[in-house]
Amino acid sequence: MLRVGYSANIAAELLDDFPAGIELIRLPRDLDHDVEIEVWIPDPYPTRNTQIVPRLRGVKLVLSLMAGTEWIPAAMGPHVTICNARGAHNISTGEWTLSAILTMLKHFPLFLDIQRSGEWKRRFEASAEFAAITGDTRTHYPPVMLEELTGKTVMLVGYGSIGKEIERMLQPFDVELIRLARTAREDPRVHAVEELDALLPKAQVIVLILPSTAETRWLIGAQQFSLMQQGALLVNAARGPIVNTDALVEALQGGKIRAVLDVTDPEPLPVGHPLWKCPNLLITPHVGGSSPEFALRSLKIAADELRRYMAGEPLRNVVQAAV
Amino acid sequence: MLRVGYSANIAAELLDDFPAGIELIRLPRDLDHDVEIEVWIPDPYPTRNTQIVPRLRGVKLVLSLMAGTEWIPAAMGPHVTICNARGAHNISTGEWTLSAILTMLKHFPLFLDIQRSGEWKRRFEASAEFAAITGDTRTHYPPVMLEELTGKTVMLVGYGSIGKEIERMLQPFDVELIRLARTAREDPRVHAVEELDALLPKAQVIVLILPSTAETRWLIGAQQFSLMQQGALLVNAARGPIVNTDALVEALQGGKIRAVLDVTDPEPLPVGHPLWKCPNLLITPHVGGSSPEFALRSLKIAADELRRYMAGEPLRNVVQAAV
Repeated sequence: MLRVGYSANIAAELLDDFPAGIELIRLPRDLDHDVEIEVWIPDPYPTRNTQIVPRLRGVKLVLSLMAGTEWIPAAMGPHVTICNARGAHNISTGEWTLSAILTMLKHFPLFLDIQRSGEWKRRFEASAEFAAITGDTRTHYPPVMLEELTGKTVMLVGYGSIGKEIERMLQPFDVELIRLARTAREDPRVHAVEELDALLPKAQVIVLILPSTAETRWLIGAQQFSLMQQGALLVNAARGPIVNTDALVEALQGGKIRAVLDVTDPEPLPVGHPLWKCPNLLITPHVGGSSPEFALRSLKIAADELRRYMAGEPLRNVVQAAV
Repeated sequence: MLRVGYSANIAAELLDDFPAGIELIRLPRDLDHDVEIEVWIPDPYPTRNTQIVPRLRGVKLVLSLMAGTEWIPAAMGPHVTICNARGAHNISTGEWTLSAILTMLKHFPLFLDIQRSGEWKRRFEASAEFAAITGDTRTHYPPVMLEELTGKTVMLVGYGSIGKEIERMLQPFDVELIRLARTAREDPRVHAVEELDALLPKAQVIVLILPSTAETRWLIGAQQFSLMQQGALLVNAARGPIVNTDALVEALQGGKIRAVLDVTDPEPLPVGHPLWKCPNLLITPHVGGSSPEFALRSLKIAADELRRYMAGEPLRNVVQAAV
């Protein structure tokens, strides 16, 4: 029997579709004895694995339920194979990204404030907010109360499975797309990330959806904010360290850009951090992937990978091959 | 020369594409003398036409810049032809509707509150909010922080040009669509509005995008709220009187449904009205159509209609034919 350890927080009935021929071993967060397993399915929350990791013996394969696995290599070392749940987040994170873009372009945070104050006539503040952030101070009539996504130029920094899903969801809005990834390619046209600075001035919306690595750390800093259009919207659906937080705070406080962040650096964002009070910003505290449908999807991907592992077939979502 | 009167609030340069052979007459809001014109382009805000209407002489054709023209027949009588700007609102109102749905399913109003409080760990309140409004109190892991639009059943009450645009924008989300309109038809399947009560229990999202008439007044009342699913999301992108406000307040206060309203009854919503403080509600104070691109689109539609009028061709967007 193949011994598969899994986080005790995952409801056992979600594992009903796992293949026959395995022994499932529940691993509580406060595991207090060594456990011999060949395959490990960690808790989606990295910190809940802290006491488990040093107790594991014999692990050859880690099946993460998440897309981002940046904490696992350091925890487990180079002699294990690590697979992520590529695809499990596509729908939830894609939808979060669309929601984030639309909410800001529609000035919904302001309208929510107006609702709380109960004064209908304050709605004209939307026109002032539009003029201030975009720099478009022409007289519009009827007054501008919200902006359109249709026709805007959207930059996708990262073009993996979630990036492609975001592109699919943007399709009805006839946006001009600029795609960037580690390596340039054609059909569709994807630019190398080295072209970021040259392309940034073209974009009204910039979506970060790339892995967090040593190379992508602080990819977006003071230089990049200075190259963005007045009022550009930065959406971070990836990882906090990809953005230099000090430079972000400065760009927001200076009224240069607007942003929606599902992730921050540091994370969790501590009480009193200046980001909390920045203007033109919406923070959702790392919730982008967490829908009711997510657990089922990610466990199905893990079950399929496990089936391939047991059959000796190549694994599909390897992010680290064992050395 | 054909005499065409237009609201002085509309920037004259927006009329550059109007056909030759017309004389354009600016009509200030406080017009204090009679004016002889054949075609009238009213101010998009009905109340700004109050002093103008009694001064107009000889009007045969009214070209509204809006989709909703319900105030014009009473103001101008039955002997004028009235055209609306069908299509001008498609993109802005379609996008507003998508934004409204996604913002609520993603619990963004709660996350904005959490951001204001500066406490990251309050994010778990989203799981409690999800359980309370949907009635799904199972233990989910990872915890549910937001909901997906993908796979939901969406009812479109109204299937004119904006309704079709909303359907187009919903396409990437693989929703189950239920369409209703005044008359049933096939390809695609549209149900008669008489089937509303029978179909309401199937829908998780209900979008109102139909004209305000004597027949559609209070189409959604206590009976309809009682037929909706626990946690159903009502989106009113049409007109306030289509919903019985007292019944809506009761359904919201009772935690039965959630709603996003761009329109209300009464409108503007007065200070102190109970709707302002209802839970699970987002109000945007009638801003859905007001994008920077809107004026150009609606004036282009008016110019095209004017061209047809001058050429003696049939008009395209007649909502009242002169008797």
